Amino acid sequence: MASYTSMDLLKYLIFDVHQVESLFAHERYAHLDAEQTWMILESAKLLADQEMFPFFKEMDTTPATYDGKGGVRTHPQIKKIIQIAAAQNWIGGAAKFEHGGMQLPEMVFNTAHHIFQSANNSTQGYLGLSTGSADLITSFGSQEQINTYTPHIYEGRWQGTMALTEPQAGSSLSDIVTSAKPTTEGYYLVKGQKIFISGGQHDGVENFVHLTLARIEGAPAGVKGISLFIIPKFTPEADSSLRYNDVYCAGDFQKMGQRGYSTTHLSFGDNDDCRGFLVGEPHKGLSYMFQMMNGARISVGQCAASVAMAAYQSSLQYCLERPQGRPAAEKDPSKPPVLIIHHADIQRMLFTQKAITEASLSLVMECNKLYDLVHVSLGEEKDKHLMLLEILTPIVKTYASEQGSRSAALAIQTLGGYGFTTDFPVQQLYRDLKIMSLYEGTTGIQSLDLLGRKVTMQNGKSVKLLFSAISNTILESEAYENLKPYSTSLSAELKRTGEVLQHISLYATKGEIDRYLSDATVFMEMISYIVIAWQWLKMANKAVEKINANDFKANSKIFYEGKIHTMEFFFKYELPHAEACAKTLLDEHELTNIKAFELFN
Amino acid sequence: MASYTSMDLLKYLIFDVHQVESLFAHERYAHLDAEQTWMILESAKLLADQEMFPFFKEMDTTPATYDGKGGVRTHPQIKKIIQIAAAQNWIGGAAKFEHGGMQLPEMVFNTAHHIFQSANNSTQGYLGLSTGSADLITSFGSQEQINTYTPHIYEGRWQGTMALTEPQAGSSLSDIVTSAKPTTEGYYLVKGQKIFISGGQHDGVENFVHLTLARIEGAPAGVKGISLFIIPKFTPEADSSLRYNDVYCAGDFQKMGQRGYSTTHLSFGDNDDCRGFLVGEPHKGLSYMFQMMNGARISVGQCAASVAMAAYQSSLQYCLERPQGRPAAEKDPSKPPVLIIHHADIQRMLFTQKAITEASLSLVMECNKLYDLVHVSLGEEKDKHLMLLEILTPIVKTYASEQGSRSAALAIQTLGGYGFTTDFPVQQLYRDLKIMSLYEGTTGIQSLDLLGRKVTMQNGKSVKLLFSAISNTILESEAYENLKPYSTSLSAELKRTGEVLQHISLYATKGEIDRYLSDATVFMEMISYIVIAWQWLKMANKAVEKINANDFKANSKIFYEGKIHTMEFFFKYELPHAEACAKTLLDEHELTNIKAFELFN
Repeated sequence: MASYTSMDLLKYLIFDVHQVESLFAHERYAHLDAEQTWMILESAKLLADQEMFPFFKEMDTTPATYDGKGGVRTHPQIKKIIQIAAAQNWIGGAAKFEHGGMQLPEMVFNTAHHIFQSANNSTQGYLGLSTGSADLITSFGSQEQINTYTPHIYEGRWQGTMALTEPQAGSSLSDIVTSAKPTTEGYYLVKGQKIFISGGQHDGVENFVHLTLARIEGAPAGVKGISLFIIPKFTPEADSSLRYNDVYCAGDFQKMGQRGYSTTHLSFGDNDDCRGFLVGEPHKGLSYMFQMMNGARISVGQCAASVAMAAYQSSLQYCLERPQGRPAAEKDPSKPPVLIIHHADIQRMLFTQKAITEASLSLVMECNKLYDLVHVSLGEEKDKHLMLLEILTPIVKTYASEQGSRSAALAIQTLGGYGFTTDFPVQQLYRDLKIMSLYEGTTGIQSLDLLGRKVTMQNGKSVKLLFSAISNTILESEAYENLKPYSTSLSAELKRTGEVLQHISLYATKGEIDRYLSDATVFMEMISYIVIAWQWLKMANKAVEKINANDFKANSKIFYEGKIHTMEFFFKYELPHAEACAKTLLDEHELTNIKAFELFN
Repeated sequence: MASYTSMDLLKYLIFDVHQVESLFAHERYAHLDAEQTWMILESAKLLADQEMFPFFKEMDTTPATYDGKGGVRTHPQIKKIIQIAAAQNWIGGAAKFEHGGMQLPEMVFNTAHHIFQSANNSTQGYLGLSTGSADLITSFGSQEQINTYTPHIYEGRWQGTMALTEPQAGSSLSDIVTSAKPTTEGYYLVKGQKIFISGGQHDGVENFVHLTLARIEGAPAGVKGISLFIIPKFTPEADSSLRYNDVYCAGDFQKMGQRGYSTTHLSFGDNDDCRGFLVGEPHKGLSYMFQMMNGARISVGQCAASVAMAAYQSSLQYCLERPQGRPAAEKDPSKPPVLIIHHADIQRMLFTQKAITEASLSLVMECNKLYDLVHVSLGEEKDKHLMLLEILTPIVKTYASEQGSRSAALAIQTLGGYGFTTDFPVQQLYRDLKIMSLYEGTTGIQSLDLLGRKVTMQNGKSVKLLFSAISNTILESEAYENLKPYSTSLSAELKRTGEVLQHISLYATKGEIDRYLSDATVFMEMISYIVIAWQWLKMANKAVEKINANDFKANSKIFYEGKIHTMEFFFKYELPHAEACAKTLLDEHELTNIKAFELFN
């Protein structure tokens, strides 16, 4: 079977680099050990091998399609996957025992989901959205809501979704107009249109639980007047029967990629009979939703890394099998062709892919571990983990999706013309990947979040925590002679990043907020290079440690050498672009925020 | 109607920046004037508006498909387009009068083709391949061959193709094995397989003229044993009847994009009855083919620029119509939303697209003009134009395709989630674009050509000519106070490029050819930024000249200001990445050319 991820890499990341075992000291995860963790991940791999990966192409050629009467037809395997995955606890596995879960760390649970995403990214979303929905209800819903919805969701019979976007508002959530009218019956009557609802009303489950943002009549304008509602497609009645709740699927968007995944247009209350059940307090919906949204952003970053990983694996396999051409210095055409992996430019493309995808996954795991630490810590310590997680969230989402697309493009390039044909999966992965920079807030939105919110919150505490985490890794590297040039280089990058931040912060200080934020995306690109260099240095530290200790039980020596080599590659080929971004950010000539749009003609 | 290119821009590029009128002084083009030229381009626009653009999406949803019995079914409009375009001289228009052409400069002819490519890139290839095939026969074929084939090709009844690639050889032409056995009848019996044959045996024309590379029995190994053959699908007999020539279409590749364009697998001589007619001398086929190949490379660059231009136009239109969100500093949610073009990040994405696409087109036009100058000059002057064209060819092909893909990705981003749906054309353009970095030699192959052949030929004469052309533009800029910072900056870039070249040339001097070439793609990226900066400075020079002269007859003042603004944008946002590439190239730590492929695990 073709490979779509590397279990050796996952072992290295989860045990060595990010040390999942340190979590097992906490009561919440005390029931786990390393061996069990690995068995769990191996069972996830088996599921992906058997039920997901074989259907990857079929789900593209027979995409989710509107049935013309309120539903979406998906590939029949979707239903089977949801049922098997639910039975194996891949929807509720991270939930607490008391909620029917296995109390798995996010690190473990989401690594399994990475395996699913790399095997078949059209299928994992159905599971992930259900997980996030049930989590949200558990965090902010009433006990009755938890009891009513989460067991069905965890059983894979009901699908959770997040219903935020409206046609006229797009990313601007302050402009949503879906209305909720209070009744005396304990529910609200909801009316409105939601688009791009992933996992929306398809034929793989019995019912849907739409976590929907709406405005209670008379609510304040803007984001401070948004409330969160549970809106099932069929409302469970007291006698356990299901009553149609006037949630109509008006269509399914046909997309360039991820075509197995239903993306619906939902219409709530066409017949004025759509009941919404308020979650938590009125007008606090957006802050609740952000729990799910933040998880979803990391998950999108993870999905991007996973799809790029699948493309890398496919590309690597091709390069190891395809003979073509000769080394540049070899002029004798009678010599037999070599495998293309011998060519320097092919190696450059492979290392670039490896550098992007492995570090993206490492950063995802960094985030997942912080999530776990938030769960098991308290007070200032908890706040620290949370603040670091907050600043890393938009970065992992953006780097993995933007550079993941570039990585998948390189996968196509290594196959030459074949890469563009539907005979090979790399083009599908390239198409699938493009949505990742749009889901859950585009790159532009993530960058505004980073610079406008995350960098500034609590007087820059998040940035300081990030710099301090990077500095710790640099400090560790300094113990290893062969890593010194790289720790020195990363120190310099960190210093320059500080200077850039100081420079652009002056705009904010002067009250020029639009200007402060105008190159947020360039800032995002710059800091991403540095964060990824950090992950590479962290991986290299551990590799040197293993090599120095002659410890090759888990992975071979050359596996660790590959980590050091790829770290060096990233520092030589990718990191210099951080300085280019800095140059742009330090240039005071203002070229955007123009009003004369004829300049675009 | 939606816009897909800018006629104002074309007017500016062709008349002002690249001064087509200077060609009219030469006898070959003396029958033309500016007014006529513009009328010709306007008629091309009309053709594209009426017959090409309206079918853009349909050709994607009903792609060229194998009919199961030796042919490819295309969209019915393809046949109509070929016929109308031929009647309007858009196949043979650049040919000399004596060959039935209109003796149009390539600058004009190819600008018309740019219009076709931006309107519907699945259609132009059919025309362009015919043009190139007829040119090739005219350049190297016998008078009889010219008489037999080119009139039918120009009339759009026979389709020309170029048949180079074989399944086992890919980009490595020295490994092709298609064989040609001499007979006493004046033809060769050809046998072999060719893949990725664009415009191959489809239902839009009556016959095909495959310009095919094959090896005459006993020929030397490698590229020095390759000959060029005309292989028609149906051979014209003495009595004008057509005889089936045993050229079977065995299939059509299904592709991620450009789905209206047939991409065939051809099998020659399955029944040992395929007659090939030698063009020119034996074993010189590859050098002949390079005439067509070089033209095709520029044309692919032009097509990439054109598709990216269509995406930019579509993106710009959306940004001018879509209200969403408020400026970052505006906190009042009751204020109405603004058009998204007000947002700085949207402007950044639009200017990036504009910077990439307009300069790519300008560079294409630079190449087309050099082609024209080659046609009308002699001796050392001709050689100079040719040498400059030689070095620019891989650059325009690569920059336009690689950065064009990035540009189209930004077009998707400006539309948010909508950009990923098939309701909008940007995703199709993004898919279509990806082939451009693969056609006619991948980016890796182009980069080897640049550094391995073009940079070194005639002791670096091409590089010197390029530097001197850039220096001339810098010199012109120095006359304008507001352009001085940019000419200074470009001078510095040029100097650094020289240093980088000197540095890596040391590897070649020491005989380390593989090492000299190992980062050819990074060198390509670096020099591309500089060449594009040159084009921007050139455009800005002319814009300042127009503004200073208060000459707004052809275009408005703000149009010219937009050119200066976009030049400044390119220098601030894009050009700094040249230095990052230089840093990589100057770093002596060798990380590719490895032999231990387990490092990729």
